[in-house]
Amino acid sequence: MSRGLFVSFEGGDGAGKSTQVAALAQWLEDLGRTVVCTFEPGDTPLGAVLRQAVQHGDHVNARTEALLYAADRAHHVAAVVRPALARGDDVLTDRYLDSSVAYQGVGRELGADTVEKLSLWAADGLLPDLTVLLDIDPKVGLGRLNTAPDRLESAGDRFHRRVRKAFLARAAADPDRFCVVDATLPRKVIAEAVRERVHTLL
Amino acid sequence: MSRGLFVSFEGGDGAGKSTQVAALAQWLEDLGRTVVCTFEPGDTPLGAVLRQAVQHGDHVNARTEALLYAADRAHHVAAVVRPALARGDDVLTDRYLDSSVAYQGVGRELGADTVEKLSLWAADGLLPDLTVLLDIDPKVGLGRLNTAPDRLESAGDRFHRRVRKAFLARAAADPDRFCVVDATLPRKVIAEAVRERVHTLL
Repeated sequence: MSRGLFVSFEGGDGAGKSTQVAALAQWLEDLGRTVVCTFEPGDTPLGAVLRQAVQHGDHVNARTEALLYAADRAHHVAAVVRPALARGDDVLTDRYLDSSVAYQGVGRELGADTVEKLSLWAADGLLPDLTVLLDIDPKVGLGRLNTAPDRLESAGDRFHRRVRKAFLARAAADPDRFCVVDATLPRKVIAEAVRERVHTLL
Repeated sequence: MSRGLFVSFEGGDGAGKSTQVAALAQWLEDLGRTVVCTFEPGDTPLGAVLRQAVQHGDHVNARTEALLYAADRAHHVAAVVRPALARGDDVLTDRYLDSSVAYQGVGRELGADTVEKLSLWAADGLLPDLTVLLDIDPKVGLGRLNTAPDRLESAGDRFHRRVRKAFLARAAADPDRFCVVDATLPRKVIAEAVRERVHTLL
């Protein structure tokens, strides 16, 4: 049995990541594959505690925030992602390492290299086979949200513009891993673009 | 106003750290100084959540454990230790960075250098002016405890012997920062030895 496919979905809030995760999962299941859909931060009992602490608890500084996300990732990878891939399941995750680099490394100005090293150590080196970047102007993305903003969502225009640039720079530097899609396109058009790219990996 | 004195107390469980923190605090206060007594992991609202998660929650792997302790340290240093030192208060902490190196770096075999770098990054470089190592045979120390053991306390003899060796090796490598005391001595004798060393720093 071969290892499953590991695909991460990245981009600003309101880009439509969860919609596209669900669409790709359905397509892969229709092909007879077993799919695990997950997300960061928070998709474990420990992760839910950390997500609550970092997004809605006491004020924490940038390093604490980065370390809490890294701890969440370390546990998520060890407890959920690696076991699923080892079983041969495909894993689709809504956010992964590139979010930490963009939000904490660049947005919070801790340094992209520093946060990438921290995240890779947390994940014991596990990178996705494919990363779908749903690119969107932060004003458009945040305008789509209809929930109260958490700490990162409410961090301001300049912050979110830096984050978007960081995502695009990472994608440009690693075109083999990234698939960049304009998130303002109709969702069926986006899903088709993602499927085409995934198809080349199957 | 000059910066306060920062002293950490390290050693295995049951070594008598909290007793010695209290004794030194009393002596410093009798000299007219203002003292903040604190501990890791856990002496903030966020830290209490993390302490519970890592010591009594779901099983977490070694990297997650190290990252949770680092997150606790980052928040503790930023929210408690640095503000107190900046006010001119002395800060006495029951456990700090050397515990992470000994327990996660050596005990959990993540690598002493790796965990030291992680901890220093979390603390933004803050090292104690003095670290009191209360050295004790783990069998004697753990035998003194009268509470149910947490995850680290119950990690086994070989683990705790490695941790003790790691503490002693760090002390031997940095005698200017460390003061090593035999924790089986009477507590008044230990307190006197600690005071003598602290006196040279005032």
